[in-house]
Amino acid sequence: MKEEKKLVRVIGGESVSPPPIWLMRQAGRYLPEYRALRAKAGSFWAMCMNPQMACEITLQPIGRFGFDAAIIFSDILVVPAALGVKVQFEENVGPVLPPISDIAGLETDQGKWAATLAPVYETLKLTRAKLDSHTALIGFAGAPWTLATYMAQGRGSPDQRAAKLWFYRDLEGFTQLLELLGDCVAHHLARQIEAGADVVQIFDSWASGLPERMFEACVIAPTKRVVQKLRAIHPNARIIGFPRAATLDGYERYARETGVDAISLDTSVPMRWASEKLNVAIQGNLDPIALLAGGNALKQAVDDILQATRGKPFIFNLGHGVLQETPPEHVAELITRVRAS
Amino acid sequence: MKEEKKLVRVIGGESVSPPPIWLMRQAGRYLPEYRALRAKAGSFWAMCMNPQMACEITLQPIGRFGFDAAIIFSDILVVPAALGVKVQFEENVGPVLPPISDIAGLETDQGKWAATLAPVYETLKLTRAKLDSHTALIGFAGAPWTLATYMAQGRGSPDQRAAKLWFYRDLEGFTQLLELLGDCVAHHLARQIEAGADVVQIFDSWASGLPERMFEACVIAPTKRVVQKLRAIHPNARIIGFPRAATLDGYERYARETGVDAISLDTSVPMRWASEKLNVAIQGNLDPIALLAGGNALKQAVDDILQATRGKPFIFNLGHGVLQETPPEHVAELITRVRAS
Repeated sequence: MKEEKKLVRVIGGESVSPPPIWLMRQAGRYLPEYRALRAKAGSFWAMCMNPQMACEITLQPIGRFGFDAAIIFSDILVVPAALGVKVQFEENVGPVLPPISDIAGLETDQGKWAATLAPVYETLKLTRAKLDSHTALIGFAGAPWTLATYMAQGRGSPDQRAAKLWFYRDLEGFTQLLELLGDCVAHHLARQIEAGADVVQIFDSWASGLPERMFEACVIAPTKRVVQKLRAIHPNARIIGFPRAATLDGYERYARETGVDAISLDTSVPMRWASEKLNVAIQGNLDPIALLAGGNALKQAVDDILQATRGKPFIFNLGHGVLQETPPEHVAELITRVRAS
Repeated sequence: MKEEKKLVRVIGGESVSPPPIWLMRQAGRYLPEYRALRAKAGSFWAMCMNPQMACEITLQPIGRFGFDAAIIFSDILVVPAALGVKVQFEENVGPVLPPISDIAGLETDQGKWAATLAPVYETLKLTRAKLDSHTALIGFAGAPWTLATYMAQGRGSPDQRAAKLWFYRDLEGFTQLLELLGDCVAHHLARQIEAGADVVQIFDSWASGLPERMFEACVIAPTKRVVQKLRAIHPNARIIGFPRAATLDGYERYARETGVDAISLDTSVPMRWASEKLNVAIQGNLDPIALLAGGNALKQAVDDILQATRGKPFIFNLGHGVLQETPPEHVAELITRVRAS
């Protein structure tokens, strides 16, 4: 029987035309129905950890736009939370957590991880039951490196300073952190697949600006380890990796060495280069600001990507998340243009 | 007569061993003698525009460390200031300027530009007179695209949102801005050479995250135009370009197409790749956080770079500016290690 989900077919290596489309942060603040729910819910974290609410939010953009995939409404910091770290979200600041400099005291018990993360799996089950058979369900986790940057700094850090310093000064201790995170990430992805995820994506949002040696040690090796651990449990797991704003050389090595089935590319990557050089399915990479701008520039940006990826197993997406100021009508226009291609 | 300045020899295409070394932001807040002067001076901008003071600051790291080049103490926003824009520096915020959405009202008179920028040229003359014959003097300017991001947003913008929106929605108007900026940048670089700069560097600090089409229109083409205009005045101008965090493909095109003599590379660029693929002299790319960390990791990071660039015309530098928390002793250790290579 032919696989009905276009996203799954592409990840399996098939070129599908028109390509499947979904958008990073497709469920979020640019949607009035999300903002309405958010106003009632209290905090972002409470929404993530409430399965009924998270399910409803996950489905909002599916109901409105008919994307080819739903991505579960959750956050990458559920993994640090499972390790016992208190995560808080401050308005206009983002996540704040107590910075750590060693792994002492972090939770290592899988049963405890599963208990903390149970609402995520419940959300997946509820969502899977409500999706039609054409729409893929995507689970996700943060990559060990990106999670480590938050845990070392206590918040997001564009220059990843605290994590880099830890790496430079205490390679052994930092490697222990990456490995513990990798164990929990692999666990979390496996449980998401069991709860109904067709595909999982690993977000390495802070993979840019790393010297080659650090990219190897902190991005390539830990991701490869997560993929191996996940496939030891689910040999056919379908995995998208997103080492955001890696160098082209970094993307190429990531595609070749980590074992992912598909790679998500940031806005700066020339898609003709990616179509030729990357040995896995590719996803991306519309500029979120082109989507915000709309009009002819959006059309041209979309057409550039469609043309460069013709014949390649390809998933249309952004190079980063939807911006909250984006008019929903631009998203509708984007989908229409991609589906007409 | 043999050129005495190692930096100039490398930019002319010669491989020099050990390589010349200087650091972006080598004059700055990590130095106690800078902080002492700053405490007296009032504002950052006042220091930039006071030739005696700017000269003294420029020379501080030369006196302390004996770098192979001095870079004039100034700021990229002197060009918007020359165009008549009021630039202010707010503590812990950085530069703030009134955002613009068209070029009406910007100063186009070269005589007026020269008058505003006169203190910079005076600083160069004072500094040149005090430098020995082995130490190169570097002038600089921001690239049109990076300056445009500040002028459109009214401050620094890691996602370059306002400039990108302007580009997407009003290509003609935005191109006018890039051209006016390019005229003023070329003018400013030419005057700096006349005032004693041996070399000029063009900083495109926000060149990352641009779709290929935008990188071509906003980084490659305007830089090429600046280089052509500058060489029309000074055919032998020595020019380093720094399209920070461009893709590898972007760096390669920049090196091949803009006409610069050397290219400065951010921390993520594999230097073996750069040595092989770039047809100009290369500069970079130590992680500023490795310099902050010090110790064995710093030694290894330095050795990685030295090894990968052997035989290539190469200038040792950072991938970005010195961080203000950097211990000056680490800088001394860095220089010792590079000079012993």
